[in-house]
This record gives sequence, structure tokens and C-alpha cells, in this order.
Amino acid sequence: VKLSEQLLQDNADVWRTWLPHPFTQSVADGSLPREVFLRWLAQDFRFVSEGLRFLAVLLGKAPAELVDPLAGTIHAWNSELTLFRAEAQRAGADLAARPLFVTQAYADFLLAVAHREAFAIGWAVLFGVERSYHDAWRWAREHAVSDNPYRAWIDNWGSDGFGAFVEGLASRLDALAPGLDDATRSRLDERFAETARFEVHFWEMAWRGELFAVPK
Amino acid sequence: VKLSEQLLQDNADVWRTWLPHPFTQSVADGSLPREVFLRWLAQDFRFVSEGLRFLAVLLGKAPAELVDPLAGTIHAWNSELTLFRAEAQRAGADLAARPLFVTQAYADFLLAVAHREAFAIGWAVLFGVERSYHDAWRWAREHAVSDNPYRAWIDNWGSDGFGAFVEGLASRLDALAPGLDDATRSRLDERFAETARFEVHFWEMAWRGELFAVPK
Amino acid sequence: VKLSEQLLQDNADVWRTWLPHPFTQSVADGSLPREVFLRWLAQDFRFVSEGLRFLAVLLGKAPAELVDPLAGTIHAWNSELTLFRAEAQRAGADLAARPLFVTQAYADFLLAVAHREAFAIGWAVLFGVERSYHDAWRWAREHAVSDNPYRAWIDNWGSDGFGAFVEGLASRLDALAPGLDDATRSRLDERFAETARFEVHFWEMAWRGELFAVPK
Amino acid sequence: VKLSEQLLQDNADVWRTWLPHPFTQSVADGSLPREVFLRWLAQDFRFVSEGLRFLAVLLGKAPAELVDPLAGTIHAWNSELTLFRAEAQRAGADLAARPLFVTQAYADFLLAVAHREAFAIGWAVLFGVERSYHDAWRWAREHAVSDNPYRAWIDNWGSDGFGAFVEGLASRLDALAPGLDDATRSRLDERFAETARFEVHFWEMAWRGELFAVPK
Repeated sequence: VKLSEQLLQDNADVWRTWLPHPFTQSVADGSLPREVFLRWLAQDFRFVSEGLRFLAVLLGKAPAELVDPLAGTIHAWNSELTLFRAEAQRAGADLAARPLFVTQAYADFLLAVAHREAFAIGWAVLFGVERSYHDAWRWAREHAVSDNPYRAWIDNWGSDGFGAFVEGLASRLDALAPGLDDATRSRLDERFAETARFEVHFWEMAWRGELFAVPK
Repeated sequence: VKLSEQLLQDNADVWRTWLPHPFTQSVADGSLPREVFLRWLAQDFRFVSEGLRFLAVLLGKAPAELVDPLAGTIHAWNSELTLFRAEAQRAGADLAARPLFVTQAYADFLLAVAHREAFAIGWAVLFGVERSYHDAWRWAREHAVSDNPYRAWIDNWGSDGFGAFVEGLASRLDALAPGLDDATRSRLDERFAETARFEVHFWEMAWRGELFAVPK
Repeated sequence: VKLSEQLLQDNADVWRTWLPHPFTQSVADGSLPREVFLRWLAQDFRFVSEGLRFLAVLLGKAPAELVDPLAGTIHAWNSELTLFRAEAQRAGADLAARPLFVTQAYADFLLAVAHREAFAIGWAVLFGVERSYHDAWRWAREHAVSDNPYRAWIDNWGSDGFGAFVEGLASRLDALAPGLDDATRSRLDERFAETARFEVHFWEMAWRGELFAVPK
Repeated sequence: VKLSEQLLQDNADVWRTWLPHPFTQSVADGSLPREVFLRWLAQDFRFVSEGLRFLAVLLGKAPAELVDPLAGTIHAWNSELTLFRAEAQRAGADLAARPLFVTQAYADFLLAVAHREAFAIGWAVLFGVERSYHDAWRWAREHAVSDNPYRAWIDNWGSDGFGAFVEGLASRLDALAPGLDDATRSRLDERFAETARFEVHFWEMAWRGELFAVPK
């Protein structure tokens, strides 16, 4: 079985805890509370802003054949920031809002992985982030009411085009797999599982707000 | 007011939420449940193991005058690992236990800070980590029953010698302060506040186990 | 005087040693030996390939307002690689040729600066690289014979559009200047001077081949 | 054949160009010109100061079993700086002298390798640096006149104890070898060859002064 498929199988129970998440469901049926939308917008903006640095650090040590895909992904994520800014202005969201705990911890996780781990592990995490995100928005696309107010977002990440991009990440991951020694593979499995976990926390945070407040 | 003191003032309410923490109290009175002790031992071992990498990355970009203190701190933390290993063998703790969420997130936070932020921010975070730790163990020392079973740990981090080391970190931080521009200072404040917060989560995790389980 | 101008003044004598360089002169008059052109093509391809990583690492720790310009520069450099590949195929150049000493040392210098130094120093070095390159090709543009066979390259880096891009780098550098403490400024001066020096070695290498052979 | 031995065989011709180097010979017979000694002292001090950062970055991503050896090496290199400072004071050397081109380029090479390449490549380079250095000083030890004025340096790096340390680096490199895929192995070979080359340039620079001046 391919590495990309093995990782999804190993973490299928985590995927099941949130797919579909109430956030995704209310995106699809158009009932997403405005407060939740604004929080998601601000936190995801921050996540993408920080995530760009993750991509950049990966590019800093990428094998030659992955330089172009990573440069392209940086370009794409940077363009998404423009989309966020435009929507924030229209909707009155505050993109300067401080990141909630999950947002910052997820971003720091990505950066730590990119700097510390072998390149293939960073790539596996990137695949996990994008695959998970695509799954969420594809579910929304498949269940979206007509005249859905979140059509632009749904089409951005739920489309077949984005799906093909995610498939490309999987193929390249599978091509890296034979070069992994046991220790690296084991570490890759752990870091991928953490990615799956952060995705759950991220949707929960978007839906409910600060999750991990300091106890008084 | 000195930067090191300002940071402590700004985060005094966070400190108050955990000082003294039930963990610390039960260390002092000797009632710490064995299961809790073993969990702490394994998780703190992992934290120090990963934290060594934080120190190392900081050394990689330290100004010349801080190379020697950082090299010394790496030596000290590495020696602590030997202490952990000896105690783990005596007590039957499993140091290969997987890190709980807080342990890994805290370690990744440190690594992300060291790589991404200006050096002074990493140094401020190091001060936060060590000051907080010293405060916990000093409280334990001041309230320890005679014939305390955790005397070696209490003396290691609660001693005046360790206190002087922490003071040294503060002095050097204060010496870096005049060179900080506004943006860096603001970022430093945020990252220090995150450190204070992770310390709370860390004691809670040591005391109660996994805090941030994925919801089923 | 602005920081960007001060740096150019301080290194004016280095600039004078190579502007115009025989390489640039023979580009302008069309007499560039084919062997020299092929060597330059392969070595500059390698330099840009590696330099992309320098940009990426800088992006990994850039202040928020410089994320977009850096992402744009990564996109531009990556596009240049396509130009190199197309020309290499047409001209029969071997882009897989091993980097000569100067090429690799220059690339490693950039990467070391990006990782180790404060962000502003990396930005100053980027300005040095691009300004120097623009100066070389602008000279060629101003002295180019009509029907020049290197028109595509000359227009790429010698154009007013590229000049405006370089001016943008200078403006942003000048905006970073007030935030620099003395130690960082002094270090920035040293690293900029090294950049100027590498540029000389680079043109010499392109023109003459391996410069720093190991003595037998 | 073991990886460590293969690397030495592949670069035996480079080793032969400098072993023994006039520097080493004049250390052994005590005729080293004072000016040369002072230059070496200042440049090697700088190299070790910067090299500490290379070790630190490697520690930042080392596999668990190599954390302790790297922490020990950092401790040792940092202690050597004390030796340099003491000798510089005695001999009147200026340790604040600016690094010559080779010194800085060698240090940047190390840092770039540590940050960019897979961990095993950084370890191979460390082996190359230390093995080469030991070979030079062991030659000096074997040919030293009695009452040699450089006895402290000769014993520091030419001793059997240092030789055993270098052997330890080789053993650990050989243990990493089976985990290397073809691309990483090929890259490791290139970086090791660059290390061998820098060693030649370093002795030449110590002996003759600035090698790669910018042409007027």
C-alpha cells in the first residue's frame, strides 16, 4: 500500500471525529453564524500567513525536483491571503486579531517540523494539511445548498482542481517513501498523526472559540 | 522598569493560577502519587531532550558574548538527562513514552521561536521557561517536609545556585532590551506570554494526564 | 544618508574593479566566447537554484509586510529557471554541471546569512545581489550593439522594470534601518561587503573558469 | 568498505596536496614564523567560534542517540576557545581580527550544510573537519622536535585521545550509512569533497595570508 494511503488509513478514526464537522455542515447549508465565520476568517488568515513560512523553510531544503512545486504552492498560498483580505474588508473581520492557542500551536508545529525533521516528513505534513482541508471543503461542496453564500471558499478548496493538487502531493510523497529509513518513517508517522489531530482542534476552535484557556 | 521585571509583572496573573500548583504542593509535602511522578518524569525528560535543540538553535545565531552561556546551558541540560535516566531506571519509569500533546506542543513552540524569531525573543522565552521552573521548585523547597523524597529534584532547580543562573538570564535579557525595535518588542511580549501559558498547561498535564484529547 | 546609499558608497571601490567587467563588455558588443556563455549559463542557473533557498529561508522569518515581496521574488526567480532551461536546451549547455568553487561558496554564504543573521542583514544582502546584477546588465544594455544576441538576458536584468524592483528593495532596506542596533548594523556592513566581493569573484569565474583550484 | 574509509580514499589526492603542509612542518620543527602563528591563532579562533554554531544547528536536528556526543563536542569546542584566548593574551594576538576570505567561507559552508542538508551529511562534514585536523597535528606530533614550543596545540589535536574521538565520529557515520538513499549519498560525497578542499585552503591561508583578494 502506498505511503499516502497508509497514513490516511492509520488516521481514519481521527478523520471520522470531524468529517463532517458542524462548521463544515453549516457552511454547506448556509447557516454558519456570522461570529463563527469572522473568527474562522481571522484565524485561518493567520494560519495561512504563518504556514507560508513553513512552505518557505521546506523549500530551503527541498530536493531539486520539488523546488518548483513548492515555489508554486508559496505563490498560491500568498494569493489566498489576498482573497482573505478582500473578504475581511467586505465582511468587517479583524485580520489583526491575536491568534487563538490552536492557531499559534499549529503554526509553530509546522515550523518546527520544517526546520527540525527530514524533508520528507515536512512534505508528509503538508500533504496531511492539504488533504484534510480538501476533504472538509469537498464535503461542503457535495452538500452545499444552491445559492450558497460561501461558494467562493467552497470552490477554492473543494474543487476538483484543488483535489488534483492534493493528489500531486500524495504522488510525490509516495515517490519519497522508498528513501526513508525506519527511524525517519516512524517519525513521519508520528508527525502525520499530530497533523490529523491539529485539524480536529482547528475546526473545533473555529466553531467554538478558544479551547485551551488557562484555568483560573 | 527592567524588561525582565516588566514581563513578570505583565504575566503575574498567569503565574498566580498555578503557583503553587497541586503538583508542587504534593512534591513539597511528599504526597505526590507515584503515577503522577512517573508521568512527570517521562514527560519532562522528553521536554528537556527536545528543549536541548531549542538551546542549540539559539546558539546557532547567538551574539558572540552569549555563546559561552548557551554552551554552558546545553551542557547543563544534557547532564540533567543523565539524572532523569538514572531516576527512571530506579523508579521504573518508561522514558520512551510518547509525548503528550502539551509536551510536544511546548517543544515545537520553543523550536519555532528559536528558528523564526529574532534572537532576543528566544532568549526571553528561555528566561521565562527557567524562571517559571525555578519559582515552582523554590516554592517546593521552602515548603518541603524534612526527609522529602524528592530532595534531589528540589535542590536541582529550587536552589540558590539555580536562582543565580536564572538571574543571570534576566540580566542578559535586560542588556538586550535597548536594541529592540517596537515590532520586535511587541512580538517578544506575545511569545513570553505564550511561554507563561505553556507552563500552566505543563503542570496541569503532569498532574492530570492528557489534557487536549481529540473529541470522539 | 540612506542605508542603501551608504552601503554602495562604502563599497564603491569594489564595484569599480568589475564595472564594466570583460564579461559584461563582451555581452554588450556580442563577442562573448561561446564557452564562456555556456559556463555562465550553467553556473548562474545553479546560483539561482540555490539562491531560491536563500529567499525561502528569509521568507521563513520575514516581518509581515515583507512576506508578499519575498513570495513575489521567489516566484520571479523560479520563473527565471525556466528561462535558463529553455536557453540551455537551445544552446546545448549542461545545467547539471558541478558548481565551481565560487558558485557554491556564494550560495552557501547566502544560506548561512539567511539562517544565522538578523532578517535585515539578509535583506541587505539580497539588495546587494540584485543591485550589483542590475548594474552589470544595465551597463550592457546601455552599450549593447544593435542586433545583440543576448538581448533577452540584457532586457531581463538591465531593464527599467528590474531597476524599479531593485529600487523597491532599497526602499524597504532603508525602512528597516532605524530598527538596527549598533552590533547588527556593523554585522550588516560586513555581510554586504562580502556580497560585493562575491560578485567580483562571480564575474571572474564566469569569464575565466575555476579560480580557486586546490594547489597540487 | 565503510563509508568513512571510502570518503578518505576518494579524497586521498587532496589530502596528499597538503599533508604535511609547510605550516605543519614548521610547527613540528619549531620554525613557524611568529606572524604566521598569530594569523593562524586569530583565524582558527574565529573558525572554532563560528564552527560552534555549526555543531549547534546539527544538534538541533540530531537523532536522539547523537544528542549526547554533539553536546559533548560543543562543550569541547567551547573549552578550546578558552585555550585560544589564554594563548592570544600571552602571545599578543588580536582575536578580533576580521576573518580572511577562507575562514568566513569555510564557516558559512559549515552553517549552510547544517541547515540545508540531511543530518548525516552534516555529520560526514564534521568527521572530515576533525579527521583532517587530527591528521595534520598527528603528523606534527610524530615529527616534533623535543622542547617544541607548540606542544600544547600538538597534544590537543594530535594526541591518541583526540584520535579516538575522531574514530568515534567515523563509527557513528558508518552507522548512519545504511539509511542513506542514493541522492543523499551522492550529495554527501560532494559536501565531503568540499570539506577536504576547504582544509587545503585553510592551511594555505594560515601560511600565506589572504588568498582570494579582489583583483584591482
